[in-house]
Amino acid sequence: MSFDSERVLVTGGASFIGSHLVEDLVERGARVRVADDFSSGTIENLAAVKDEIEVLDGNLKRRSFAEEATQDIDRVFHLAADHGGRGYISNYPANCATNMALDNIVFETAVENGVEKITFASSACTYPTDIQQEQRPLREDMVSFDERGGAYADEAYGWAKLMGERSLQAFHEQYGVDASAVRIFTAYGPRENETHAIVALIAKAYAEQDPYQIWGDGEQTRNFTYVSDIVSALVLANERISDATPVNAGIPDYISINEVAEAIFDYLDWEPDEINRMTDKPVGVRHRAADTTRAEELLGWEPEHSLKDGMAETIDWYVENRDKGYVQENLETLLHER
Amino acid sequence: MSFDSERVLVTGGASFIGSHLVEDLVERGARVRVADDFSSGTIENLAAVKDEIEVLDGNLKRRSFAEEATQDIDRVFHLAADHGGRGYISNYPANCATNMALDNIVFETAVENGVEKITFASSACTYPTDIQQEQRPLREDMVSFDERGGAYADEAYGWAKLMGERSLQAFHEQYGVDASAVRIFTAYGPRENETHAIVALIAKAYAEQDPYQIWGDGEQTRNFTYVSDIVSALVLANERISDATPVNAGIPDYISINEVAEAIFDYLDWEPDEINRMTDKPVGVRHRAADTTRAEELLGWEPEHSLKDGMAETIDWYVENRDKGYVQENLETLLHER
Repeated sequence: MSFDSERVLVTGGASFIGSHLVEDLVERGARVRVADDFSSGTIENLAAVKDEIEVLDGNLKRRSFAEEATQDIDRVFHLAADHGGRGYISNYPANCATNMALDNIVFETAVENGVEKITFASSACTYPTDIQQEQRPLREDMVSFDERGGAYADEAYGWAKLMGERSLQAFHEQYGVDASAVRIFTAYGPRENETHAIVALIAKAYAEQDPYQIWGDGEQTRNFTYVSDIVSALVLANERISDATPVNAGIPDYISINEVAEAIFDYLDWEPDEINRMTDKPVGVRHRAADTTRAEELLGWEPEHSLKDGMAETIDWYVENRDKGYVQENLETLLHER
Repeated sequence: MSFDSERVLVTGGASFIGSHLVEDLVERGARVRVADDFSSGTIENLAAVKDEIEVLDGNLKRRSFAEEATQDIDRVFHLAADHGGRGYISNYPANCATNMALDNIVFETAVENGVEKITFASSACTYPTDIQQEQRPLREDMVSFDERGGAYADEAYGWAKLMGERSLQAFHEQYGVDASAVRIFTAYGPRENETHAIVALIAKAYAEQDPYQIWGDGEQTRNFTYVSDIVSALVLANERISDATPVNAGIPDYISINEVAEAIFDYLDWEPDEINRMTDKPVGVRHRAADTTRAEELLGWEPEHSLKDGMAETIDWYVENRDKGYVQENLETLLHER
C-alpha cells in the first residue's frame, strides 16, 4: 500500500492521534498537509516530521480556511474535532455539537476541491449507550439509520460524530466521493493529554497523588487501544473502503480502570496508601469494547500492541516529557483543561 | 407582545416563510435585519418592507458572514436552510446535511455576539417516520434523546433539523441563551415556490396540464398550514419559550393531495380530462398532522386560517404574479428547480 506522492490533508494533524498518523503517512511517501487550530494539538507533536510537511494554522469551521486546506489535495483524513475526556464532553455539549459544522464544512469544501477520498475519524460514542451496561462487543451494524432505535448515541459528542458519518454517507451518495468512517475506540499512547483516562491515571500516579483518585468505582471498562493500531486502521480504511461503510478500530478486550491503575502502580513501582473512588464523577457507559470482525474482513486489521507494551511506551513517554514537580503543582489544571 | 426597538435577525428572511415573518416583525416595531443567500429567497419577497429593514446578502455557512449578521442583535429567528420539496431532499442529501453546519455556525456566532434569544425553525421531518403510516397526530414528546428509538428522523434533511434542535439545546445548557424550536409542518401560502406540493398542484392546474400529474396515489395526507399561522407560532415561541422545548406549528387536520387538487380545480373552474397518479415518485411518509396541545398550552396558539381561505389567497397570489404562458412553457423546470 503506497501513498507515494499522494497529496494528503490531515485535519487535526497536530493532535495526539493526528500526529502519529502524519508520521505514518510521511513514512509511506505521502506529501502531507496538516490543518489544525492548535486548540489541543501542538507543534511539538509534529517535531519529528516538521520539515517534511506543510502546516496550516486555522479553524476549519471557517469556510475560507477549509477551502484553502482542501485545495490541491487527493485524500483527506478528517480528524479535527472539539473533544476531550468524559468530563469535557459532559460539560461542554455546545462545543461538541459544533463538530457538526466542522465536519460538513470539511466534507463540502473537499468535494468542491475535487478530493478523491475522505476518511472520517468517527467514534465509539456513536454506539447506542443502553447496550453498554454489560460486556457485549459493539458491532458496526448495531448503529443504523434504517430502523427505529438504530441511532442512540452518547451525548452531544456522540450524536455529532454519528451525524458526521451520516453526512459523509450523503456526500458519497450525492457526489460519489470515496468515503470511509473509522469508529475509534478508547485510544491511548504518547502525546495524549491528561483529560483522557489512561494519561490522567498516569499523571496522578507520577505526581504520587494520595489518596489516589479514580472516577467511579473503577470497575467500568474500556478497550484501551494503542495509538499506532488506530493509525493503521485509518490508513487501511482510506485505502480499502470507498462506500462510507463504518468500521471499528478498537481491541476486543474489556479492561477496567482499576486494572489500568494497578498496571501503572506496578510499572512506576509506587502505590498510594489509599484510593478514593469518586462515584459522583461522570464515567460514561459501563462497558465498552469492539467487535473486530468487520475490521478483520474489510481491512485485514488486527491490533498489534498488548496493553502491557502500550502502557510501557506511554508511561516512558510521560515520564521523559513531563517534569514531576510541574505535574504535582499543576495536577488539577492538567486533568481538567483540554 | 411587543418587539418595539428590538434588534432582530431573521436568517433566510427573504424566503417564503421568512419574508412573511419579517413583515410581521416590522409591524410589531422590531428593527429587522435579514441575512439570506438568495438561493431560494428573493428580494421581491421583501418588497413591502424593503425600506424599513437591513438586508445582508451572504452564506451563513461562512463564519465571517455569520459573525457580521449576528452583531448588535437581540433576537435571532433562524430560518435559513438548504431545503426543497420531497424530490429535492431525496436527491440532494449532502446539501441537506450541510444544514448542520449552518445551524451550528449561526448558534455559535449568535452566542458569541451576546444574542439573548434564538428561535429555530425546525421541521415535522424530525418525527419518527414509522408512526406516519397511519393517521396518528404527532406529539412533541414522540421525539426524544432520552430513550432508545426516540430519534428516527425523515432522511438527511430531517436528521439535520433534529440535530439543529439538539445543538440549540446544547447551547442553551452551556451558555444559558434563551432558546425555542418550532417544528414547522407543511406550510403553504403566497411566495412559496413550485417544488412544494400545494404550489406545484396550483401551477399544474394553472398551466392546464392534462393528463394532470399527481405524485403517488394522492391519498397521502399532510396538514397544510397557512403561512401566517406559522409566523404567529414563531413569534409566540420566541416570546414565551426559553428552555429549548420544541413545539409544533401545524394544524391537526389530515388533508389528502387528491382533496387539495379538487379544491384547486374548483377554485380555478378547470379540470383535466385525465389524472396521472405517478406512483414511482417520492412522496415521503403516508400521513402527517400535528397534535396541537403543547402549542395551545405554551403559546396560546391556534391556527386561524381554514384550508379554503388559505388556498384562495395562495391561488389568487399565484395567478396575479405568474404569467400563464410562462408557467406553461417552463412547468417542468419550475417544478424541479429549487
